[in-house]
Amino acid sequence: MRSEYNRFIGCNAEFEEAEYVLFGAPFDGTTSYRPGTRFGPSVMRRESFGIETYSPYQYCDLEDCAVFDAGDLELPFGNTERVLEMIEHMTSKIITRDKKPVMLGGEHLVTLGAVRALVKKYPDLRIIHLDAHADLRDEYLGEKLSHATVMRRCSELVGMKNIYQFGIRSGTADEFLFGRIQNPIFGLENVDEEIENILFVAQDYPVYITLDLDVLDPSIFPGTGTPEHNGFTVSEVLAYTMAFSDLNIVGFDLVELSPPYDPSGISAAAANLILREMLIYYSQFNRSQQIAENSSLDDIDDLEIDTEFII
Amino acid sequence: MRSEYNRFIGCNAEFEEAEYVLFGAPFDGTTSYRPGTRFGPSVMRRESFGIETYSPYQYCDLEDCAVFDAGDLELPFGNTERVLEMIEHMTSKIITRDKKPVMLGGEHLVTLGAVRALVKKYPDLRIIHLDAHADLRDEYLGEKLSHATVMRRCSELVGMKNIYQFGIRSGTADEFLFGRIQNPIFGLENVDEEIENILFVAQDYPVYITLDLDVLDPSIFPGTGTPEHNGFTVSEVLAYTMAFSDLNIVGFDLVELSPPYDPSGISAAAANLILREMLIYYSQFNRSQQIAENSSLDDIDDLEIDTEFII
Amino acid sequence: MRSEYNRFIGCNAEFEEAEYVLFGAPFDGTTSYRPGTRFGPSVMRRESFGIETYSPYQYCDLEDCAVFDAGDLELPFGNTERVLEMIEHMTSKIITRDKKPVMLGGEHLVTLGAVRALVKKYPDLRIIHLDAHADLRDEYLGEKLSHATVMRRCSELVGMKNIYQFGIRSGTADEFLFGRIQNPIFGLENVDEEIENILFVAQDYPVYITLDLDVLDPSIFPGTGTPEHNGFTVSEVLAYTMAFSDLNIVGFDLVELSPPYDPSGISAAAANLILREMLIYYSQFNRSQQIAENSSLDDIDDLEIDTEFII
Amino acid sequence: MRSEYNRFIGCNAEFEEAEYVLFGAPFDGTTSYRPGTRFGPSVMRRESFGIETYSPYQYCDLEDCAVFDAGDLELPFGNTERVLEMIEHMTSKIITRDKKPVMLGGEHLVTLGAVRALVKKYPDLRIIHLDAHADLRDEYLGEKLSHATVMRRCSELVGMKNIYQFGIRSGTADEFLFGRIQNPIFGLENVDEEIENILFVAQDYPVYITLDLDVLDPSIFPGTGTPEHNGFTVSEVLAYTMAFSDLNIVGFDLVELSPPYDPSGISAAAANLILREMLIYYSQFNRSQQIAENSSLDDIDDLEIDTEFII
Amino acid sequence: MRSEYNRFIGCNAEFEEAEYVLFGAPFDGTTSYRPGTRFGPSVMRRESFGIETYSPYQYCDLEDCAVFDAGDLELPFGNTERVLEMIEHMTSKIITRDKKPVMLGGEHLVTLGAVRALVKKYPDLRIIHLDAHADLRDEYLGEKLSHATVMRRCSELVGMKNIYQFGIRSGTADEFLFGRIQNPIFGLENVDEEIENILFVAQDYPVYITLDLDVLDPSIFPGTGTPEHNGFTVSEVLAYTMAFSDLNIVGFDLVELSPPYDPSGISAAAANLILREMLIYYSQFNRSQQIAENSSLDDIDDLEIDTEFII
Amino acid sequence: MRSEYNRFIGCNAEFEEAEYVLFGAPFDGTTSYRPGTRFGPSVMRRESFGIETYSPYQYCDLEDCAVFDAGDLELPFGNTERVLEMIEHMTSKIITRDKKPVMLGGEHLVTLGAVRALVKKYPDLRIIHLDAHADLRDEYLGEKLSHATVMRRCSELVGMKNIYQFGIRSGTADEFLFGRIQNPIFGLENVDEEIENILFVAQDYPVYITLDLDVLDPSIFPGTGTPEHNGFTVSEVLAYTMAFSDLNIVGFDLVELSPPYDPSGISAAAANLILREMLIYYSQFNRSQQIAENSSLDDIDDLEIDTEFII
Repeated sequence: MRSEYNRFIGCNAEFEEAEYVLFGAPFDGTTSYRPGTRFGPSVMRRESFGIETYSPYQYCDLEDCAVFDAGDLELPFGNTERVLEMIEHMTSKIITRDKKPVMLGGEHLVTLGAVRALVKKYPDLRIIHLDAHADLRDEYLGEKLSHATVMRRCSELVGMKNIYQFGIRSGTADEFLFGRIQNPIFGLENVDEEIENILFVAQDYPVYITLDLDVLDPSIFPGTGTPEHNGFTVSEVLAYTMAFSDLNIVGFDLVELSPPYDPSGISAAAANLILREMLIYYSQFNRSQQIAENSSLDDIDDLEIDTEFII
Repeated sequence: MRSEYNRFIGCNAEFEEAEYVLFGAPFDGTTSYRPGTRFGPSVMRRESFGIETYSPYQYCDLEDCAVFDAGDLELPFGNTERVLEMIEHMTSKIITRDKKPVMLGGEHLVTLGAVRALVKKYPDLRIIHLDAHADLRDEYLGEKLSHATVMRRCSELVGMKNIYQFGIRSGTADEFLFGRIQNPIFGLENVDEEIENILFVAQDYPVYITLDLDVLDPSIFPGTGTPEHNGFTVSEVLAYTMAFSDLNIVGFDLVELSPPYDPSGISAAAANLILREMLIYYSQFNRSQQIAENSSLDDIDDLEIDTEFII
Repeated sequence: MRSEYNRFIGCNAEFEEAEYVLFGAPFDGTTSYRPGTRFGPSVMRRESFGIETYSPYQYCDLEDCAVFDAGDLELPFGNTERVLEMIEHMTSKIITRDKKPVMLGGEHLVTLGAVRALVKKYPDLRIIHLDAHADLRDEYLGEKLSHATVMRRCSELVGMKNIYQFGIRSGTADEFLFGRIQNPIFGLENVDEEIENILFVAQDYPVYITLDLDVLDPSIFPGTGTPEHNGFTVSEVLAYTMAFSDLNIVGFDLVELSPPYDPSGISAAAANLILREMLIYYSQFNRSQQIAENSSLDDIDDLEIDTEFII
Repeated sequence: MRSEYNRFIGCNAEFEEAEYVLFGAPFDGTTSYRPGTRFGPSVMRRESFGIETYSPYQYCDLEDCAVFDAGDLELPFGNTERVLEMIEHMTSKIITRDKKPVMLGGEHLVTLGAVRALVKKYPDLRIIHLDAHADLRDEYLGEKLSHATVMRRCSELVGMKNIYQFGIRSGTADEFLFGRIQNPIFGLENVDEEIENILFVAQDYPVYITLDLDVLDPSIFPGTGTPEHNGFTVSEVLAYTMAFSDLNIVGFDLVELSPPYDPSGISAAAANLILREMLIYYSQFNRSQQIAENSSLDDIDDLEIDTEFII
Repeated sequence: MRSEYNRFIGCNAEFEEAEYVLFGAPFDGTTSYRPGTRFGPSVMRRESFGIETYSPYQYCDLEDCAVFDAGDLELPFGNTERVLEMIEHMTSKIITRDKKPVMLGGEHLVTLGAVRALVKKYPDLRIIHLDAHADLRDEYLGEKLSHATVMRRCSELVGMKNIYQFGIRSGTADEFLFGRIQNPIFGLENVDEEIENILFVAQDYPVYITLDLDVLDPSIFPGTGTPEHNGFTVSEVLAYTMAFSDLNIVGFDLVELSPPYDPSGISAAAANLILREMLIYYSQFNRSQQIAENSSLDDIDDLEIDTEFII
Repeated sequence: MRSEYNRFIGCNAEFEEAEYVLFGAPFDGTTSYRPGTRFGPSVMRRESFGIETYSPYQYCDLEDCAVFDAGDLELPFGNTERVLEMIEHMTSKIITRDKKPVMLGGEHLVTLGAVRALVKKYPDLRIIHLDAHADLRDEYLGEKLSHATVMRRCSELVGMKNIYQFGIRSGTADEFLFGRIQNPIFGLENVDEEIENILFVAQDYPVYITLDLDVLDPSIFPGTGTPEHNGFTVSEVLAYTMAFSDLNIVGFDLVELSPPYDPSGISAAAANLILREMLIYYSQFNRSQQIAENSSLDDIDDLEIDTEFII
């Protein structure tokens, strides 16, 4: 008789049998303007009962994938360094047991905690970064650790050339300069082509995907602290993340959902739909099923067609 | 000096002279998650004064069409069967006098009440169903009568093969299986083509349209209980509903507007624009005017072009 | 690492050791105007982490009382009779094991389910009813089962003379007439005196308390469907419920919190404070502790003084 | 089958038989800070179905009093002078037929329109003014016609000494000086005593009551543009307005409800409760009934007691 | 240590050195339905700190352009004519010193004040009007001065044939008739082509752009009083306004942002992005920089391509 | 023409001439549950234009007192220690010039920064603490620096016996134990008496007042993160703070206004009223004026009477 609202819909695996371990990092301690992402994970879980576990896009049910929902970390607000340590510790526990972490933010800085753990296990880690903002400042309001500096800090761990950025449409002149010198920042043009490039250059490496949900257009995803227009549609994000299923994904995160700015709940609905699809894209159950069906859905050459299919 | 806010803008006909009779069915008694569609009809009327009666898409004014607004039914919450009886009774009264019902929900279950009445007069009724959700469960939380089972119940009255579904992008594996075996569920692909098929197969039959407004994309229509992304645009819905004006439309409904989740009012604005256009599409005044002008707007072959025109 | 947000703060007992069993009845299916009480139990639990488990009014900690939080019933919307059966069944399970039910509504009709179970075990049950509304209609919108008829239905089970009403300040002329003929409806005057009478007449009987939280003044408790001004303060409700601790309380409920109308959360905070205090007032741990301390806090004669103390 | 939501609950009289004529003046054109009172009348009507027509305070039903609800004036925003003319015209129409106007604002300036009409029929008019703000500026932002100057303008019509102010707790030094020189501004002290004075000095004159609802404490009435703390309770306002029933009331208004700042609806509930009680206090039906019952409720000497009774 | 929140981000020039002078006209006095645009300018400034000053679309920083933010006019609500005089006076002061005004509304009527001043200096002024609504009524609710009549009033100053309208999709039959007879109203079709026409016919004249932000689609811009679906995207508006940079722009305005209907802030974010881009498009600094770089970005023939680039 | 919205109403002194220096500390970095107090200072300033500068309680105008509004500190979120340093630095600057700080929070931890500076200048500092919560934890979620530990940290600087607490009605058993052993925690009883004690024991020492606004009842002050019922009224807080004007007040703060939970603005209105009154109570202008008038308002013996006067 106890409600299951405390776990994400369809994530019913036990820890031992799980391929993916979902956990929340409800931290927004460096958010400088509009806080609220701390409520992201709990609202995603609660609203997840508004979607189905079955994906009509992939003919596959999330319940058939092995995902354990570990709940939320209890993070001490006001001590940023310790928050990162706790996230790193949690991530380490998951990857030590050969499982893959799926982290729900929280603000974008939480990604640094996960990357610190991952890079110890995977020194040649690549990061795919979808975001409206470059997040490449060296410091912000005098601080090295900030949502606005997180990818700069990550670049110090994995190298800027190993971070692939998409959807960036906001930053200072310096950030764009830094990003372009080290590595092309992939903006909003030629995305399909760039994804093919990435599928090629990253194919032999472990890959972490960090999805700042504000990469979506604000009309679709209003519930975030710093909305930036001209973003991706849901079907574009689905097509891109589906394409990445050919890579060796060792974990991923979805960050920056801020429920207080989402009174209608459509932002949580978008986040949940994308999370369900990503979990299915990257799950062994689905991939083995697809191979059996000789499915061509994730064929690189068909990316254009796939996009349309999803739309 | 009395305000006219208690009727939809431009619906000024008397009952006797009316071609269409509008009424509200403000019921959300089986809504399992986020209630609020009970406020749909009254908010649509109130907000209708934010649009004009004149349609620049059709060069026609709603005031020239003969629509009577009968107000809202007073439905007893907690007794679902009696609610359906009252809706059936109201619909019967309208069609007995050779008028056509236009029902404003309320949750989707209200459609069953209208269909029960219609199928008695029109045993060969066809139903066009636009929705994000299949609504084909056999029961939901142990109940046969639910917003999630309404099309299954309708299928028992008219036959599943006589229900044409569009825009469906959420359901259980079983619902998709049931839908596809009985009749193709029209998803989000090849919609223009499928509409041409329907115009062909349904041309000799009375047709009821049930428009669950959550078929619209959540960016356009956030004000609903279970938003599902990747939906239609307003101009797509206008193009599709315009195409149906070649059919013998005997009534229609718009359901699932939930004003509490629509703080900016754009969902009500979308519902009202679509209602105005549908009333004009299907009104005799407009159609005779169009014939007089030898208008080619509703020509099936031009559907593609028309869509662009509307956009 | 899993969050405890799915139980009320401090309610950490196992079922077997519990004196009280808390459960939610998230039903608002007969609510005729503004729904939302279905969210009451989950919001109370979530917001409970904003109060402490320690009561500075009673020098006692809720964690020392034996309360098990059984979570929420999953109730089928649209089938009122079955909802009541499920609540009756749950209540029976609790009292069969000699535990006491504490139900969180939901709308007021849920009380009927609990009373149906209780009256089978306790045929001489007395009901203390705190409410702004009489809830004594014989039917409402043609229905016998409604939030507006619930005390009339209860009166058919226990007798109107065994229902003691407080705080009533809204009703039809007929309801007031019915209430006054059968038994004085206790309004807002002379409440202390009336409570002393009740303590006398009910002292030998099992007593159930149903607390419609809208008995509180709307300034304190705005989050409810039908706010009625001139209500009690929190300290008055605490004083009255404390006074009842001399009676043989066999269960109680708190109903009609509607979170959508409580954007600031002060209504949930009031409900949670009162729930914590009531659980402590009526728990054996506290009472035995008080006896040990020869506490005079719950002495009837000191009621006036106690009230001031609490304020 | 048509809903009655377009009239205030219980105001079912026809115009000809009515003693009171209710109308809305939905104008907030001079509101300098937070607009929204234009929605006051329509929200009061809609929310009126959340209260009962029966008053347990007066043992009398509003349906037995003869009140006609004339709906709202359609006022041209941007032309303040014409708005006042339309209100004056409406008021004249009502009093010409020997009925009494009850106006629902809108901002406080609408009172000037009504007073202009009344003073033509009743040159010796007295005004009772309950408000948090003095509204005695000579001009505001360079304008003579403003919500902040309305009582100054009224004083030019009836004389400052014939305006009795209660509850005033905000104003400039000049306003307080002006008010005190001409006539004591009755603040928050000794209100009972001052009311007795007014009952004496105004007993032979026609009296208009203008009730700016922000005289209520913001905890009770948050839904207003400029909340000012330390206000009256509902029971105080009921006691005071009941006391005035001994005077020759020729009309009254309730102004400054701003629904956008009242998400929970408690402000509208307060306004509606007070409106119901005032309509019953001042109706002939109730007064003749009371005389028959030899009721002592409105006896001046019992004012203290009455206040307690209401609380 | 004083915060800079009282100016728009990046608008740091002193008045004397400025090319553009930004000022707010926070007036919504003729708004007939949902007020709130009075809060537009202050919210735009406050939210401007959520975007960057650097434009990745134009590789240029707003801080390098010479813009002075003059703050908001203090306008007297209730006296429409005087409001227009104050706006006219402010605009005159700016253009007398050979600077260009950028006005932030407020409702659309404020445009009339600016046009009155501009037409005195530039008798051959052309106006580009982007809007969902024609605003060509001769009067509205009996008033000549209204948001619904503003372009009719402007047409009396500059001639209807010198007003170029885009995006219009709402109006009465009369407005569309009036607009089409005098000059084609440019709807939503063939916009690129029509812009090329305008670039040709207006190339030798001073041009004022009035951008009613409700020309944007409500999914992108929900925060407005009368949302009308089927609007432009942000990238379309950016492409069109960029195209106009070849003209002799003597000033522009952005009107009709209504923050109360924009709880998530995406409407303000859209307005601010467009304002930043327009200020950079039309600034001398950027244009001379572009010329130096031989940029082809603003080449008319590449309009199609540019649009894609922006998307 | 530039708006003055960036300073608190009536605080128009230059820094050099000021007796009090107001500044905002918009920090909520350790808030564990509902953030938002970072918006407190800016909302207080903006809403301050809804009250008057004139106090009818004190017959004195804030404009006559010498207050400089220094704006807000720009605090780095995520680095709690540096935030405290910046606040300490600011406070030092103010007191070095023999002015008195008035700090607007922000969360309660900001008080520690101010106290650190003050205790260096005034080693025998006394602190008057009005709050619903004891804030005496030694650590919270593993952190020493937290809104829940702030008074414990302060006690390490000034000694627990020199902190006088009022209104405390929430805390752990340990906090109450700690508080009571060291010094009586003043609850809600006998407040007048306790204040007289404080006036006696603290009369020869410099006193800092820290006013956590959640000491007010949630009905009056809903806009805070952790509302706790049974709080003080506005008139009680005014009476108590007025009584303290006999002490040597060297600074004070108002903290924990969280505007996102205050949709109607009544919490900001209460904060602003109290701030205005405190500034006037403690200003030399007012005190010398009162002495001249031989005012008895602040006479200790009349405290009871004064309270009534204010109410």
